[in-house]
Amino acid sequence: MRFDHRTLAQRVRFGTGGATAAVAAEVADRGARAVMLVAGPGEAEIAAQVAEGIELAVDWGEVTPHVPAGLAERARVAARGAGVDLVVSVGGGSTTGLAKAIALTEHIPIVAVPTTYAGSEATNVWGITTDSRKTTGVDDAVLPACVVYDAELTLSLPIDLTVASGLNALAHCVDSMWAPNSDPIDRALAEEGIRTTASALLELVGDGSDLAARERMLFGAYVSAVAFASAGSGLHHKICHVLGGAYDLPHAATHTVVLPHVLAFNAPAAPEAETRIARALGATGAVSGLRALYERLPVAGSLAELGYDLAAVPESVELVLPLVPAGNPRAVDRDALTRILTAAWSGDHI
Amino acid sequence: MRFDHRTLAQRVRFGTGGATAAVAAEVADRGARAVMLVAGPGEAEIAAQVAEGIELAVDWGEVTPHVPAGLAERARVAARGAGVDLVVSVGGGSTTGLAKAIALTEHIPIVAVPTTYAGSEATNVWGITTDSRKTTGVDDAVLPACVVYDAELTLSLPIDLTVASGLNALAHCVDSMWAPNSDPIDRALAEEGIRTTASALLELVGDGSDLAARERMLFGAYVSAVAFASAGSGLHHKICHVLGGAYDLPHAATHTVVLPHVLAFNAPAAPEAETRIARALGATGAVSGLRALYERLPVAGSLAELGYDLAAVPESVELVLPLVPAGNPRAVDRDALTRILTAAWSGDHI
Repeated sequence: MRFDHRTLAQRVRFGTGGATAAVAAEVADRGARAVMLVAGPGEAEIAAQVAEGIELAVDWGEVTPHVPAGLAERARVAARGAGVDLVVSVGGGSTTGLAKAIALTEHIPIVAVPTTYAGSEATNVWGITTDSRKTTGVDDAVLPACVVYDAELTLSLPIDLTVASGLNALAHCVDSMWAPNSDPIDRALAEEGIRTTASALLELVGDGSDLAARERMLFGAYVSAVAFASAGSGLHHKICHVLGGAYDLPHAATHTVVLPHVLAFNAPAAPEAETRIARALGATGAVSGLRALYERLPVAGSLAELGYDLAAVPESVELVLPLVPAGNPRAVDRDALTRILTAAWSGDHI
Repeated sequence: MRFDHRTLAQRVRFGTGGATAAVAAEVADRGARAVMLVAGPGEAEIAAQVAEGIELAVDWGEVTPHVPAGLAERARVAARGAGVDLVVSVGGGSTTGLAKAIALTEHIPIVAVPTTYAGSEATNVWGITTDSRKTTGVDDAVLPACVVYDAELTLSLPIDLTVASGLNALAHCVDSMWAPNSDPIDRALAEEGIRTTASALLELVGDGSDLAARERMLFGAYVSAVAFASAGSGLHHKICHVLGGAYDLPHAATHTVVLPHVLAFNAPAAPEAETRIARALGATGAVSGLRALYERLPVAGSLAELGYDLAAVPESVELVLPLVPAGNPRAVDRDALTRILTAAWSGDHI
């Protein structure tokens, strides 16, 4: 056991129906005098409700995916102009991302109010896109000082997005078991993330308005993000990154399809991951447990269904190979990647 | 699910045989120019080895239990006089406690190198004793900025102290399941703490020099302390606090004896605790799991063995009653406390 773990300071206020009061309390506790609200048009109504108790210096409504640099700069200018001393973001990953871009240069604390299961609110990772090239970085200045979780705000998330976003959180946990900086703290949280996320999703596919399940899903997304931010990207995320970038495959569905194949490849060489994932899923094995979960969820079964071509496998293998993370439990060569990708293409077991 | 959790910023460097290098790296990373080493006579040798790579402005060797106020003040004067900008503490709870007393007023960061399983290094709780009255408080200034864990430093801890100290960590975890500020983050970490601590102790009673088990025990003590610091004292700790204070019973052994009885009382009304503790112990039930663990460890079986008198139960009940924590899973009245204490006295099941 050898690791170097940095626990990041953050306050988490969690309570259904409590977002408006929690945000107001946070503004008061911090003595903030000029608050900037960041929320896209889709979240305008929810954001207005969340910000009911506070006075706004800036009400910023422009949010687009992947945080374009120009947008970030305009938002920063607005923040600076109004002497903003607290940013309150209400929304999913794109919204939190814009708030982080502001904090990165302006060093203004963020209170993040997530409305999806993206998890960005629990990390110190930022990303900004210039000329369709995304630059990412790590800076404690972008870690939200406080996260306000309110499951009511996630009730309107459609069930297909809920499953996609939830399984994305679960993929973070699985990859956290063997990612380059994975440590036992990460793995304990990742196990909890798998347990919570899987059980929540099984209830939410039956009834998306189940608040207790929405709470567990939100909590699961939080611990998943904490684990993944510390552990870093493992083999699974490197493969999905390549597939998404080179073949324009849908992000969430790609993760869902690829995950069982990477797990099937790694698990035999990763006994702690095998034990933890199986235990979290209440199954006798990690792979069988994940497959049993998938059978009860509306998920794509193969990369073929997503438009990925078998003929692309050799090229994909060459693209992934240099990105294979150090310390993956099993050696990953061309043959191994070919097997994983071919299995993911067909949906057959590896 | 409703909670308000503060995650405290801390760096954890964990590695057997790595303490000297980790401390030197930490001193270099922080650009510290005047380091104060705090270590009692019992740890002088280990401390000298740990501090091998650094120059010392102050080498402080006076450490006594419970951090007497006079000692704290002398140490602060020494730190101030030498312009100390980093305290490195090497030792158990008393040593970390003295370093914290210095940090409390001088706001000097601490690098803590624990040699026991006390867990104080992972909390923002301080305690100082004036006229044999201990004052405790919470202040982020006393949270060590970095903890260096090196299992080699714990090899010399005798097995009886190892078991006592390890079960103390386990008691922190069990009480964290229902303490007043217990939240799902605490409970996930507490479950991991029980799992790790129990498995480590079972190996250490067979072979105290098993380094892998020493590592797991050290890690278990760390997560236990993180969970407990956030969750606060539950019923178990309130009872033990009274028994220790009023009847001068040995701290660790009292905790060990009382724990199964509080668990047996609370578990039927605490389904999440029941599930988590049972799962962590690999048992079908929480209480049976803890009893099975005890059977394999050299532990006292009853408060009677520790010198506690059955006739003291009524008085103890009155002392505990006003301290019963809010939100205990079961209502605790005189009758309940009488049953718990009588069972703990005899060692019979509640």
